[in-house]
Amino acid sequence: MRDGPFSRLCVVLVATRNPLNLGAAARAMSNFGFAHLRVVSPYGPAFREARSAVGASALLAHAEEYKSVANAVADCTLVVGTTAARHRQLQHPLRRLEYGARLIRQQLASGRVALLFGSEKVGLSNQDLSHCHWLMRIPAREEHSSMNLGQAVAVCLYELVRDTKTARSSEKPEHATAGEVERITTVLREALHASGYEKPNAAAATEDKLRRLIRRLNLTPADAEVLLGMLRQIVWKLRP
Amino acid sequence: MRDGPFSRLCVVLVATRNPLNLGAAARAMSNFGFAHLRVVSPYGPAFREARSAVGASALLAHAEEYKSVANAVADCTLVVGTTAARHRQLQHPLRRLEYGARLIRQQLASGRVALLFGSEKVGLSNQDLSHCHWLMRIPAREEHSSMNLGQAVAVCLYELVRDTKTARSSEKPEHATAGEVERITTVLREALHASGYEKPNAAAATEDKLRRLIRRLNLTPADAEVLLGMLRQIVWKLRP
Repeated sequence: MRDGPFSRLCVVLVATRNPLNLGAAARAMSNFGFAHLRVVSPYGPAFREARSAVGASALLAHAEEYKSVANAVADCTLVVGTTAARHRQLQHPLRRLEYGARLIRQQLASGRVALLFGSEKVGLSNQDLSHCHWLMRIPAREEHSSMNLGQAVAVCLYELVRDTKTARSSEKPEHATAGEVERITTVLREALHASGYEKPNAAAATEDKLRRLIRRLNLTPADAEVLLGMLRQIVWKLRP
Repeated sequence: MRDGPFSRLCVVLVATRNPLNLGAAARAMSNFGFAHLRVVSPYGPAFREARSAVGASALLAHAEEYKSVANAVADCTLVVGTTAARHRQLQHPLRRLEYGARLIRQQLASGRVALLFGSEKVGLSNQDLSHCHWLMRIPAREEHSSMNLGQAVAVCLYELVRDTKTARSSEKPEHATAGEVERITTVLREALHASGYEKPNAAAATEDKLRRLIRRLNLTPADAEVLLGMLRQIVWKLRP
């Protein structure tokens, strides 16, 4: 699990009904390294079933149960509610996940943050929302913005841990050197010549075409070596 | 559903076993606006069950079924496999989702892209992987990198549609003007004076403190108006 700022995030599931969703939320938390799960008045049998399910995580076993949202978020300096609503009359600032996650990361540097998810059917109630500083929405399609609870948790946590630098980097696969590529060109020419593909008059034109074609393959050093080996064997076999 | 480049993405589920996962993948696709679902040799009963489930999407009903990965990706110019593996001997370049999604978006500008997800138990086989140009992994924790299928689909599609500009923007809530804030300070002072809180000698110091305190509240214009109304009523009541 994550140390440092991310260990100060609490995922708070309010009035969850489906044990599979409790399990899925716990799994996503474990995938992305978040340890603190709090549940507010979950549907009793669902919570017991999820806890006792085969493969239920230690995370779910250690989930803390609260009677009210007020108690569940009492030690947090920022409380953020998630919502699928876009047009509902909201009394709170509504931020897209991409931007909201940035604000959450900033706040985690100094205090605990609660991230609230409502029930599968109705989301967070107006009373739940009144405990939030602001709301956050996942940028789903307007015509179908209501997400599965486990998937919504996964997407929000992913955005929190996602590495902006990686996205902007220009990591490139290794390329074979010009020398390696030229050796392939030479041996391929020999093979074409030996097989009768290359017409004597057009030899120079063919060589240029071949060189350009091989360069366009963007071969890695390892693939260049394999290809060279294949071609050498073919040339050896073609010789009278 | 999305027009333009994103309509050229095909989600390809290979050998999926659990109908709930088929349904969850379809739901995430609908949430994020992707229409083309292809399934390769799904577990038969699971596929039929998922299709006939209550609330199953039109998307799932229109999923195309293929006998092999080769057939499912034949019309695509880029084939990307997803994997949880980090250390396995991979013959392919392995890219983090943040960077891989950028390359996929670039490719979608001109051609179809297939995004492959393997079965719940074992992921994509080596044979499946041999059809891929490169592999992509979601940056999950090393000790628990295997994600639920529906959640993995949701996170990958989210990364594809996420708006980088929004993340970097500095959207701020509206603030009350200095004039509005000053009116609150004045009326609060009247209230404190009328209630006997303000000691005559300390009046100037109290005024400065009050002004700074009210500014730190970062009031919105609407909240400033409500607060001013409350204070005016209190002052009115306090008058003898």
